[in-house]
Amino acid sequence: MNRIINSLSVFGLGLIGGSFALAIKSKFPDIKIFGVDQNHNHAAKALELNLIDEIKSADDKEVLGSDLIILAIPVSAIQAILSELLTKISDKTVVIDTGSTKASICQCVSQHSKRAQFVAAHPIAGTEYSGPEAAFPKLFEGKKNIICEFELCNDLAQKYANWLFETVGMNNIFMDAENHDKHLAYVSHLSHISSFMLGLTILNIEKDEENILNLAGSGFASTVRLAKSSPDMWAPIFQQNKTHLSKALDEYIMQLQHFQKQLEVGDSAALKALMHKANEIKKVLK
Amino acid sequence: MNRIINSLSVFGLGLIGGSFALAIKSKFPDIKIFGVDQNHNHAAKALELNLIDEIKSADDKEVLGSDLIILAIPVSAIQAILSELLTKISDKTVVIDTGSTKASICQCVSQHSKRAQFVAAHPIAGTEYSGPEAAFPKLFEGKKNIICEFELCNDLAQKYANWLFETVGMNNIFMDAENHDKHLAYVSHLSHISSFMLGLTILNIEKDEENILNLAGSGFASTVRLAKSSPDMWAPIFQQNKTHLSKALDEYIMQLQHFQKQLEVGDSAALKALMHKANEIKKVLK
Repeated sequence: MNRIINSLSVFGLGLIGGSFALAIKSKFPDIKIFGVDQNHNHAAKALELNLIDEIKSADDKEVLGSDLIILAIPVSAIQAILSELLTKISDKTVVIDTGSTKASICQCVSQHSKRAQFVAAHPIAGTEYSGPEAAFPKLFEGKKNIICEFELCNDLAQKYANWLFETVGMNNIFMDAENHDKHLAYVSHLSHISSFMLGLTILNIEKDEENILNLAGSGFASTVRLAKSSPDMWAPIFQQNKTHLSKALDEYIMQLQHFQKQLEVGDSAALKALMHKANEIKKVLK
Repeated sequence: MNRIINSLSVFGLGLIGGSFALAIKSKFPDIKIFGVDQNHNHAAKALELNLIDEIKSADDKEVLGSDLIILAIPVSAIQAILSELLTKISDKTVVIDTGSTKASICQCVSQHSKRAQFVAAHPIAGTEYSGPEAAFPKLFEGKKNIICEFELCNDLAQKYANWLFETVGMNNIFMDAENHDKHLAYVSHLSHISSFMLGLTILNIEKDEENILNLAGSGFASTVRLAKSSPDMWAPIFQQNKTHLSKALDEYIMQLQHFQKQLEVGDSAALKALMHKANEIKKVLK
């Protein structure tokens, strides 16, 4: 891999933005990395941790003239700033977003004169932790990255996107934005809601938190892990993917109610049949 | 720790029974370990893997005269055989069960003349894997073990139980059986159903399993991990804990429906408030 860019601006210096900065810096120490974050504590922390070289404001000339801008901010913020950002950047700047929804983000710049300088991406990587301290350079290694509407990007944007995701160790998958959102509702967003609500149910009943600690095994910890995730990040994702997600929730609730009914009538064979079907998830998970 | 027993019989040579056998053998190689399993393949495998010294039948004299018998079979099987087993064992044999429900097991031997030789236990340890190949000697190390109705055990039974759980590295907690079942419905059994049904929902929608593989992140894998668990083990647990579990399911479904409603009306502040509350699970999980 060659260094094909000289400057990079990262909007949002949390887990995702910080990890991109670290991964790129570790391979290309000569690339100048500017950091933009509305949260001054996060910005200061990112500088202190050497995630970035310099803190800048969103409308700084060097930022708007960077070779590459990565947006690692909540999807509502991406949608709010993307159009104006495209208007302001130089003709040789490429913007890549990393949001967990794609349809409404793509929609809001579909008619923009600089649409070709924007790459709609979703790196499938993350942990339940957030903020600059959670960032680490190997977060993306070996993971999948989804790119939507790649055919709408110009050559430079495609080149920079390929270079970026290869540099951090990801494998690209290409799909349309609507399809992305539908599948992600099931394989990611629903998991998060299931986990958040499980956490809530258990906190409500177990007033004495000591009991949870004592009685919970590793299975509980695993199922409820995502309940630690950031509400500020996830609320906009859920809202932007409302239609698919609500349908996924309908189906999940229906499965739970069906299971409960078999439990109540004492049909052990039916319960086992449902679990045997669920066991097939073994085939797709390692 | 001294070796205070000479012989041990393990009923059920899967993950739990096999791990007890391995943990004890690793510290006290002189203890003779008999293995009992209706599944001949499991029994043969357990012998081949050196989990046990000898395969025996459940009514073998040496088994019924062992110093200690550990029951690591499905809770329905424990309930089916426990009373008759107590009748047949020697006066100096202690039986310890490891089932994930406690109230109905304790109930079915509450009037037994040899009740004092039985210890009702639930080691909080396990993985989503099952069978003799899944067993490993350190499974229990540092984990909690719940003992119910310890006051009904005679001195010998208490002594053997203390010795056994200390040998495998567990810390004991004491509670009544009804309380155990209620708490476990929330912190363990509900997690399993949530995970099984999530697996089912996703397999139903994602006919093309390749998509799941490509799009699923580590969060999904973590939430759905328990969907790999054994239906034969879990169906009886759910049935025996039906009352508490159905109530827990009611509450979980109510939380999901409430979340869905806020999602549909677009109340982002309400969604965030629910997630912030769920975040408190951080305090009780590492």
